[in-house]
Amino acid sequence: MSAVAGAVPARRIGIDVGGTNALGVAVGPDGKIIAQEQRQTPRGADSLAPLLDVLVGLSESLGYSAGPENSLGIGVPGLVTRGGVLRAAPNLDGVANFEIGRLISERLGGDVHVDNDGTCAAVAEWKLGAAEGVDNMILITLGTGIGGGMVANGAVVRGHNGFAGEFGHMVVDPNGPPCPCGRRGCWERYASGSGLAMLARNAAAGNGLQRVVRDAGGDPQAVRGEHVQSAAREGDPEALAVVDEFARWVALGLSNLTNALDPETIILGGGLADGSDLYLDPIKKWYHELLYQADLRPLPHVKFAEWGALAGAVGAALLPTLSPAERSDTSA
Amino acid sequence: MSAVAGAVPARRIGIDVGGTNALGVAVGPDGKIIAQEQRQTPRGADSLAPLLDVLVGLSESLGYSAGPENSLGIGVPGLVTRGGVLRAAPNLDGVANFEIGRLISERLGGDVHVDNDGTCAAVAEWKLGAAEGVDNMILITLGTGIGGGMVANGAVVRGHNGFAGEFGHMVVDPNGPPCPCGRRGCWERYASGSGLAMLARNAAAGNGLQRVVRDAGGDPQAVRGEHVQSAAREGDPEALAVVDEFARWVALGLSNLTNALDPETIILGGGLADGSDLYLDPIKKWYHELLYQADLRPLPHVKFAEWGALAGAVGAALLPTLSPAERSDTSA
Repeated sequence: MSAVAGAVPARRIGIDVGGTNALGVAVGPDGKIIAQEQRQTPRGADSLAPLLDVLVGLSESLGYSAGPENSLGIGVPGLVTRGGVLRAAPNLDGVANFEIGRLISERLGGDVHVDNDGTCAAVAEWKLGAAEGVDNMILITLGTGIGGGMVANGAVVRGHNGFAGEFGHMVVDPNGPPCPCGRRGCWERYASGSGLAMLARNAAAGNGLQRVVRDAGGDPQAVRGEHVQSAAREGDPEALAVVDEFARWVALGLSNLTNALDPETIILGGGLADGSDLYLDPIKKWYHELLYQADLRPLPHVKFAEWGALAGAVGAALLPTLSPAERSDTSA
Repeated sequence: MSAVAGAVPARRIGIDVGGTNALGVAVGPDGKIIAQEQRQTPRGADSLAPLLDVLVGLSESLGYSAGPENSLGIGVPGLVTRGGVLRAAPNLDGVANFEIGRLISERLGGDVHVDNDGTCAAVAEWKLGAAEGVDNMILITLGTGIGGGMVANGAVVRGHNGFAGEFGHMVVDPNGPPCPCGRRGCWERYASGSGLAMLARNAAAGNGLQRVVRDAGGDPQAVRGEHVQSAAREGDPEALAVVDEFARWVALGLSNLTNALDPETIILGGGLADGSDLYLDPIKKWYHELLYQADLRPLPHVKFAEWGALAGAVGAALLPTLSPAERSDTSA
């Protein structure tokens, strides 16, 4: 699974494997998308063999065949070792030490590059997107949960095992709400799509947030992030207050990561990027408010991702084009 | 201020500038300390010129003279730009955009390498200490506050501006006690020497922690970390409970940093390292308890620093020996 530095295949296939769908793209040598296709992710017991079939079929349908003119990269939602083994993936059924790269390579031939989906999205924005050419950047995916990836000193930070970038489970309040991971107050309890819905349900308790609750059919427990978004877009002050609280939680984590990593640019991606018009200003306001010694430093840029929902697939396609140094293939 | 990769001067001087003392060492080509000296850090208004005098005098006393046979590195407690300018240092009086490297170089000749003290300590442990040869490591200094430094992909992570590693001001409870930095619940409110004292004072409120309060002269407000340490060493169960709570807060931050960075090794240094016999086991216990998906990964090693109080000075001495890639001199 070594990258050939400098080689630019004519057709770079990338697949972003999500819990619901696998989204594939073929990227041409100029960085433009020349094909795109989505298939359902098989679920349930014994879904690993069908999942391999889907990924092999999608690769072939997008024009992959082993050889120097093609490359294949896959982004997966979980802990991926540096050797391309998917250790665990909460949103894929039955995954444990799944040698996804090797198994697809056996079927299709050629090297298959596998990395975490957040890292893939970071690569897309770093190489061809909102953080192009930036040597120190962080990407956060705000979806059902929070994922991410980062670049430091012009190289992807994958960590010792390949597990770096699990920003969503940084605890920001040890007395906060329980997280499925077993702890309390993980950042993604607040600053994700589920977090937005929780903040809205809290605001709806005690007869608040009436417009949003009405949109949700009258049941405060049925309130979802989309209801808050559409009411906020129409100027509902209670919905805007929930957006502001959500933005404060997002900014708190960004501020924590800035203390640790001092990035030049922070990119926000994931499903919530479709509400960037609502979220960007309050996130920036709170970020500037919460940042440590904000008056003594150039403020890092905070932007939404350019590739939107395609970032993971595009970044997976770009994995084979990274040099060994950029990919940080130096460690075990 | 460029490093000459591979050159090993016969006498490498390093100075760790603290709020109370400036500690200097001279390191020989074999990595052994050949001289060591400490002087008081000047305080008060107009202390910058006297501070320069102290650092110049200390360098000369340790045998520094400009030339290829000598080198000089300085670690400072604050935000240092990549160009060696000390932007701010809460524990040094009157510092704002202090061009410490250039000013000392004007007096002594030669290149002067300046970096954050936490980064220096990380370099000492990475190059000649408890994390020797480890490509992905984090060092945390547990002192009055919390500082740190880190290495990823075999290079120091300094961030875009040089401000990376400010782990102490990562917020771990937004409703926590106020921090002098203006926010609430920063990690160093709990997991530093001041944090240990605060946890002890909380435990003493309502007539608890009697043995420790007695040692502190009967005043719960006078309880300091040292009182807890000595009572815990003698087996006082209430003091041991405070140590356990302290260890949990330390571990919470280590777990957060592991999620972000996936290090192979975490080194604990700073003043609290002299209580490593008390703290290490409970910190490891809580770290394993709090770590995300601990059963799916090799647990990072958690160790105390080998260089103890000398780490900052030794690391400063080693700064000029880092290659440009190791020092991450690639960015602006």
